[in-house]
Amino acid sequence: MSGAPVDFYFEFSSPYGYIAANLVDDLAGRIGREIRWRPFLLGPVFKATGSAPLVEIPMKGDYSRRDFGRSARFHGVQFQMPAKFPIGTVGAMRAFYWTDARDPALAKRLAKALYKAYFLEGKDISEPRTVIDTAASLGIDAAALEAGIADPAIKERAKSEVDGAMSRGVFGSPFFIVDGEPFWGCDRIPMLEAWVKRGGW
Amino acid sequence: MSGAPVDFYFEFSSPYGYIAANLVDDLAGRIGREIRWRPFLLGPVFKATGSAPLVEIPMKGDYSRRDFGRSARFHGVQFQMPAKFPIGTVGAMRAFYWTDARDPALAKRLAKALYKAYFLEGKDISEPRTVIDTAASLGIDAAALEAGIADPAIKERAKSEVDGAMSRGVFGSPFFIVDGEPFWGCDRIPMLEAWVKRGGW
Repeated sequence: MSGAPVDFYFEFSSPYGYIAANLVDDLAGRIGREIRWRPFLLGPVFKATGSAPLVEIPMKGDYSRRDFGRSARFHGVQFQMPAKFPIGTVGAMRAFYWTDARDPALAKRLAKALYKAYFLEGKDISEPRTVIDTAASLGIDAAALEAGIADPAIKERAKSEVDGAMSRGVFGSPFFIVDGEPFWGCDRIPMLEAWVKRGGW
Repeated sequence: MSGAPVDFYFEFSSPYGYIAANLVDDLAGRIGREIRWRPFLLGPVFKATGSAPLVEIPMKGDYSRRDFGRSARFHGVQFQMPAKFPIGTVGAMRAFYWTDARDPALAKRLAKALYKAYFLEGKDISEPRTVIDTAASLGIDAAALEAGIADPAIKERAKSEVDGAMSRGVFGSPFFIVDGEPFWGCDRIPMLEAWVKRGGW
């Protein structure tokens, strides 16, 4: 891998973020760049942009509900629309950053497991217990993680990630930044790939 | 060409609609379907969805301004960001439907010429005079068109197109509907193509 890593911003309650999470390992191989996983929260973004969760927006909501599964199948990704949607994912995000500070590769596995729990197995990852159980299934120390999620330092780390994402102009999920260039949405992966390979245009 | 036509909804003030207008002839050839050009207005949609022109939305606005030209170049389409943007396009839309009632192929040529005038030549197509001059350059009778644009029947036809688009769930530009399936955005052309070729999934 050469060149700066690609920042991959995603929210754990985002179907398109989930689809992207299933595509970025292959993308990394094709472009020869590391992908840095960076969960954030859409709630503060919606406040800043005057927006709302997709499914709550007139017209766009109906389209999105139809599009989530269709897009997943288009990309060969298994998907089940969760009964409870959207959900709060601050606990999932804090668990990610707590793990990331100790073992980035494991944090990435945790992110994939949390996404799978929510968008395939119908588990409610807004529940701290579900997050901790999911982490424990990967060998993460449940008691240490439980204490970690409540640690003010991790809360601050997670908050600074959200603030940092917004200060970089991240307003949706997934959102990629590579060499300072922003790309929003699963649909933009082909453009991102071309951008890296050609060095921009 | 076999199968039902693809409805191609676009707004004359939409950069992504302009890009799509440069891509749909090739798309028609690849999927063996006719493309029906259907200009509409985003203003009433924004009212219904509580949205606003992209460039006026915090964060999304900056991204979009950067993305218009980048996307055009990615698709091999020449593009110059107009000084006055966005603009009202009800006159352009009425001119299209007036022409469409007489000669659909000529109406499509008029749409392309209006888009080129606005997004390449820096002409303000919110001015009726610019619309009429552009039409005249294609051999359309300027005096007849000028009277036509003011005809209550054409105003009603244009309004019913906008209402009809919204009743079908069209909330952005470009927006395609094929065999009842909706696709929003230039980015979705590859998915639309796959959908038609596979007969859905």
